[in-house]
Amino acid sequence: MNNTQQQQLIDAIHTVPDYPVKGIMFRDVTSLLENAQAFALTIELLTQTYQNKGFTKIVGTEARGFLFGAPLALALNIGFVPVRKPGKLPRATYAQAYQLEYGEDVLEIHQNALTSDDKVLIIDDLLATGGTIEATTKLIRRLGAQVQDAGFVISLPDLGGEQRLTKLNITPYSLIQYQGE
Amino acid sequence: MNNTQQQQLIDAIHTVPDYPVKGIMFRDVTSLLENAQAFALTIELLTQTYQNKGFTKIVGTEARGFLFGAPLALALNIGFVPVRKPGKLPRATYAQAYQLEYGEDVLEIHQNALTSDDKVLIIDDLLATGGTIEATTKLIRRLGAQVQDAGFVISLPDLGGEQRLTKLNITPYSLIQYQGE
Repeated sequence: MNNTQQQQLIDAIHTVPDYPVKGIMFRDVTSLLENAQAFALTIELLTQTYQNKGFTKIVGTEARGFLFGAPLALALNIGFVPVRKPGKLPRATYAQAYQLEYGEDVLEIHQNALTSDDKVLIIDDLLATGGTIEATTKLIRRLGAQVQDAGFVISLPDLGGEQRLTKLNITPYSLIQYQGE
Repeated sequence: MNNTQQQQLIDAIHTVPDYPVKGIMFRDVTSLLENAQAFALTIELLTQTYQNKGFTKIVGTEARGFLFGAPLALALNIGFVPVRKPGKLPRATYAQAYQLEYGEDVLEIHQNALTSDDKVLIIDDLLATGGTIEATTKLIRRLGAQVQDAGFVISLPDLGGEQRLTKLNITPYSLIQYQGE
């Protein structure tokens, strides 16, 4: 990725101040999706990063992970497996709880969506504390599949997600980093 | 679409009996997404249907509409606008309620996501009663944009969605139809 490409993505990601609560600078990927050139560039850059690495499936988390994971799966010519909130997947699932700032939430995966032959790439829009990606990693490994990589459009390095994923032997990669938040 | 292509899609869409409640034959698009060839064929067939028609934006509804709408937007080289559950979109939104079997639900769109210059294509995974698509149509028209087309992977014609959309001057199109349910 060159500086012009990085600037094109930064220009396309609008910042919404004080959302969802006062003091948070929310990085809005929906403005990037509205911009056909910036969205195409995003998928092209992720494709360059992850092609010819032997991945057999992309796992994306509900709901914004679907927006980048599904197009990247098509570009890499591999299947896409959704990780969803409870009660949304019709076949037998495994569930994994994870901590939120207040309380906890649960993610699920279909039990037969992956096998030990699969080498998985996790895709999401944004890496913050890494809680959902840790839960997703545990679900993938519970199915016996390999997973060592997670790709993001945006990361917020000050929130510790990179270190949390590294401890899980997951290598995070992001196109854009916003420091100081 | 030829018969071989249609059969390839039908073979890729598994049926889960008695989900979410007894007596329902649930058509599971996640099995299609896991199958790289079938997923690529789905997007290719939708691209053939909707290319060179002057569309400027695709609107997809949370969450399964994201899985097909975002890749199709890339294929058509146009932007993607999400319609989401309340509280998920960071900018100023309009909201539209719609009836469920028991109670009601609400969908939202960013107020500045579309203009009167936009010609919109709605994409979702499955057309059943058409309630979410009616709400989505109202949101798009409230922004002054044109919308006359909605594309689906699957439709269940016996549930009346086609007629409901036709009354709204929306032309529905689906790749696969399951009769008698």
